[in-house]
Amino acid sequence: MEYNSSDSVRLDGSAVVIIDQTLLPSRTVYKTLRTAEEIYEAIKYLRVRGAPAIGICAGYGMYVISAGIKTDDPAILLQKLSEAGEYLCSARPTAVNLSAAVKRMISAVSENTDKPVSGIKDILRNTAEAIHKEDIEMCRKISGYGLSLIKNGDGILTHCNAGPLATSRYGTGLGALFLGKELGYEFHVYADETRPLLQGARLTAYELDKAGIDVTLICDSMASSVMKAGLVQAVFVGCDRAAANGDIANKIGTSGAAILAKYYGIPFYVFCPSTTIDLSCKSGADIPIEFRDGDEIRTMFFREPSAPDVKCYNPAFDVTDAELITAIITEKGICRPPYGKNLAEMFAE
Amino acid sequence: MEYNSSDSVRLDGSAVVIIDQTLLPSRTVYKTLRTAEEIYEAIKYLRVRGAPAIGICAGYGMYVISAGIKTDDPAILLQKLSEAGEYLCSARPTAVNLSAAVKRMISAVSENTDKPVSGIKDILRNTAEAIHKEDIEMCRKISGYGLSLIKNGDGILTHCNAGPLATSRYGTGLGALFLGKELGYEFHVYADETRPLLQGARLTAYELDKAGIDVTLICDSMASSVMKAGLVQAVFVGCDRAAANGDIANKIGTSGAAILAKYYGIPFYVFCPSTTIDLSCKSGADIPIEFRDGDEIRTMFFREPSAPDVKCYNPAFDVTDAELITAIITEKGICRPPYGKNLAEMFAE
Repeated sequence: MEYNSSDSVRLDGSAVVIIDQTLLPSRTVYKTLRTAEEIYEAIKYLRVRGAPAIGICAGYGMYVISAGIKTDDPAILLQKLSEAGEYLCSARPTAVNLSAAVKRMISAVSENTDKPVSGIKDILRNTAEAIHKEDIEMCRKISGYGLSLIKNGDGILTHCNAGPLATSRYGTGLGALFLGKELGYEFHVYADETRPLLQGARLTAYELDKAGIDVTLICDSMASSVMKAGLVQAVFVGCDRAAANGDIANKIGTSGAAILAKYYGIPFYVFCPSTTIDLSCKSGADIPIEFRDGDEIRTMFFREPSAPDVKCYNPAFDVTDAELITAIITEKGICRPPYGKNLAEMFAE
Repeated sequence: MEYNSSDSVRLDGSAVVIIDQTLLPSRTVYKTLRTAEEIYEAIKYLRVRGAPAIGICAGYGMYVISAGIKTDDPAILLQKLSEAGEYLCSARPTAVNLSAAVKRMISAVSENTDKPVSGIKDILRNTAEAIHKEDIEMCRKISGYGLSLIKNGDGILTHCNAGPLATSRYGTGLGALFLGKELGYEFHVYADETRPLLQGARLTAYELDKAGIDVTLICDSMASSVMKAGLVQAVFVGCDRAAANGDIANKIGTSGAAILAKYYGIPFYVFCPSTTIDLSCKSGADIPIEFRDGDEIRTMFFREPSAPDVKCYNPAFDVTDAELITAIITEKGICRPPYGKNLAEMFAE
């Protein structure tokens, strides 16, 4: 079945239907989620992923769970749904969208306990649909802002996946590229493969290529080399949670890409829907970071992560500038800067 | 068969015997190389790898090739061996050790054309053995210097593999850790897995663990996170070629690790046997960088690269400091520094 980028998450009657992102790009499989356990599992194991998409899934998920709660007592609905919400939130701690969507759905109950349960369930469905619609509108706006930051022909480095699969349409970090493509722009995207779970190789390279956008896959360790070669004019990444001071939590490796960009003088842009901004965190130190099973590193998880014909850039080595090196240790001794003078002296014939 | 770290490359009669590093750690297979084609293949496909080990293999390889050249004319020996040397050098361009060893072996012929061919072949064997012995002595010295740069209990980040497998004994970048272990030091090593070919996961984690040295495997993208967490007091890497100004070429990703170390104020040490120093290169721009087949990225190459029980550190996210971010783009607009003020204003209730 062809994957349709506009429905990475959708409501189908009393079930949530997601595209199972762990099987892309080799297989396009839609998965129907009906219980709290199924929704938890899909979030925990990244079948649905990307902060906005997780929020949408949690919104629809809370409605689907409510539909299965057999009671006429609004207080019991509130209590059971609160328990389910706490359970869902425990699936992944870092992205604020999950807990924010759950909180919003629970408020939709607690603010309407004077209404009959069937009416409250209608409000829940409307609220979940509103979360989804707001996300589509957010993507449209954020993509326009993103496009204003780059020019036709630019090389853009991305990390992880912040495209349509991670959101509802266009995406956040990739949105400007899809929007630009529609308007006739040509960008050259360098997609970090994003170990350990390879969202860049599996999802970003796939989504961009499918849209006819030029994309080259690199290992995360190659970003410095690509930047130094002058191939990158901007870095675009998504965001799982932003603190009040502007520190942002995003897929492991994002901070490294930002440090490299600073070193090479390349602008580093974070695409941050307001749903991911958490002013209650003063700085990044307040954001909980999820640690995952080491088997994701030990085993390769996916044998052939990318499409078989994706373009790759594969230098075996890179050059580390002398100014970054504290000392060069040879069997003749420890050589410190200035290297031009000291290496010549140490290795004079 | 148990792998013995002292013989990643050795001469056995008229053949070079190597441990096939592409099969480690799951299988320990020794491979016997008798022809120029077999030696070329082993270097090209990283069955033997690590700049010093490639140099040793090339030295023994040139002797083995010479043994197969049937002539009594020193001029013909020189010509055929020069052709073979050029062929071997084309296997991998970046490490200077390969071409340096080949050049030294050819000089051993050209400087002795007044001797009978059998005598020249003896000189070739002695020269190759000297390259090997000098490497052992180099490793011993360089390891001592390395140990003087760190203290007991330190956390050390490594990239790629510069241990015994890459050299002849102890190693260069890892030498201090093996030497320190013998002297009772306890270090905590964070080994970058080193995509695409996973030398860190397959070889470094394996060698260190086998020696009883505490090692934790990380994806390359996690180095920033480990440094920020204060787990790393120094970065130790090997070197494939150093230019006169101190720029060094090493496994792809090394320059990124150096930029991160500079950002976090962590010393970055390069272990550089004099055989890898090439004063004829003025700067890193003069060092040829090898580009390899994109299939190394597209497919995972090794399904389960590391030993099944290696310790891993697997944060799913990291925090990017606000000072590294050029702008935060939300659907409400483009937010620039100072973020504390501007985010609060943009997201005021």
